[in-house]
Amino acid sequence: MRTLHHFALSPFCRKVRLALGEKRLPFTLAAENPYEGRDALFALNPAGTVPVLVDEGGIVVPHSAAICEYLEEVYPVHPLIPGTAADRAEIRRLTFWFDEVFHREVTVRLLYEKVHKRFYDPRGARATPELAIVRAGSEALREHLDAISQITEVRRWLAGDALSIADLAAAGHLSALDYLGDVPWGQYEPAKEWFVRLKSRPCFRALLSDVVPGMPPVRHYADLDF
Amino acid sequence: MRTLHHFALSPFCRKVRLALGEKRLPFTLAAENPYEGRDALFALNPAGTVPVLVDEGGIVVPHSAAICEYLEEVYPVHPLIPGTAADRAEIRRLTFWFDEVFHREVTVRLLYEKVHKRFYDPRGARATPELAIVRAGSEALREHLDAISQITEVRRWLAGDALSIADLAAAGHLSALDYLGDVPWGQYEPAKEWFVRLKSRPCFRALLSDVVPGMPPVRHYADLDF
Repeated sequence: MRTLHHFALSPFCRKVRLALGEKRLPFTLAAENPYEGRDALFALNPAGTVPVLVDEGGIVVPHSAAICEYLEEVYPVHPLIPGTAADRAEIRRLTFWFDEVFHREVTVRLLYEKVHKRFYDPRGARATPELAIVRAGSEALREHLDAISQITEVRRWLAGDALSIADLAAAGHLSALDYLGDVPWGQYEPAKEWFVRLKSRPCFRALLSDVVPGMPPVRHYADLDF
Repeated sequence: MRTLHHFALSPFCRKVRLALGEKRLPFTLAAENPYEGRDALFALNPAGTVPVLVDEGGIVVPHSAAICEYLEEVYPVHPLIPGTAADRAEIRRLTFWFDEVFHREVTVRLLYEKVHKRFYDPRGARATPELAIVRAGSEALREHLDAISQITEVRRWLAGDALSIADLAAAGHLSALDYLGDVPWGQYEPAKEWFVRLKSRPCFRALLSDVVPGMPPVRHYADLDF
């Protein structure tokens, strides 16, 4: 059986879960805590990170970008990097934008500061988030939501008319932040409408039933009308 | 004319220069200082980073991983991500290993600490490198050279029998560090032989004539017998 080794709130794992869902590929989840440094995880991926996909036939694919390229090659039905070479370059650029720039400016400052420090930081349980970092993350999030609103006011999806892995990458980050109730959707109507469209897709269902032990999601997390 | 916007010592730009060379694609270089935040660079790439490729026909492709995928799709001759889907996944995994893990553990600690701080740090010219950071980078480099030696003792190239973008990614980082004379090749014979094979290829020539103003390379930098 196809298995995805993952960590529930990791935006990179969420992107891959959404991609597998969009491609209608059944899979089971194997939960990992990357902070534990489990030997079995390092045997699958020397970098010790999630996600790692173990596909049917036993092919092991670590790293979310490598997994998405692999899925697109092996399961081209329901394409997630559609279009011409120029279209595909734009999709990849946007995907790296979320997985690198958004990740550094927003996800690390909000999600890592609040969740990882509290539950998973090896230096000590329940360290307090630094408010200056959280504030800088919230400010950066507003700028990114503004940019997403500007794009989705003129395009149905981030890279154009078709849903792509760029939407799923963005949704990976935003849905993890949404779990904490950190996204001020109300002030960014086009971005909210785009996210409602994503959240209504069948691939999103499993993400909406995620519960991190000791840290339940905010009330509207699973609502399609939030 | 095809143009690559680059920064001479950036390992990501070096990877793309090597890839263009291996594919026998002529191009001109446009030097950028990413610390300057030039408006024209942001117009090409909202992230403000290099490399950015402007291909013939005006297609703009930012981000080194997106550029390499684009080149492989549009110019499939002299493939750099060859083989089956599993082979290609392994090549991409290794490439991200160098561009993320090696980058974080070695390149940032040695190259950024020495070069960027000295010449390009906006906070003040000629800041001193922190020795503890440089030492940690040197130690990590030895571990990585040991790993490269173990691989290249049994494989001609990092991902197998064929040269791939994984070799060029690794060479991007190592050649930039080599410019500073920071790589203790003598103690890692198989890694050294692999690097000599790479350095002898025509694509490497332009890199070996790079000179950063005010910071000439160490004497053996351009030698094939070092």
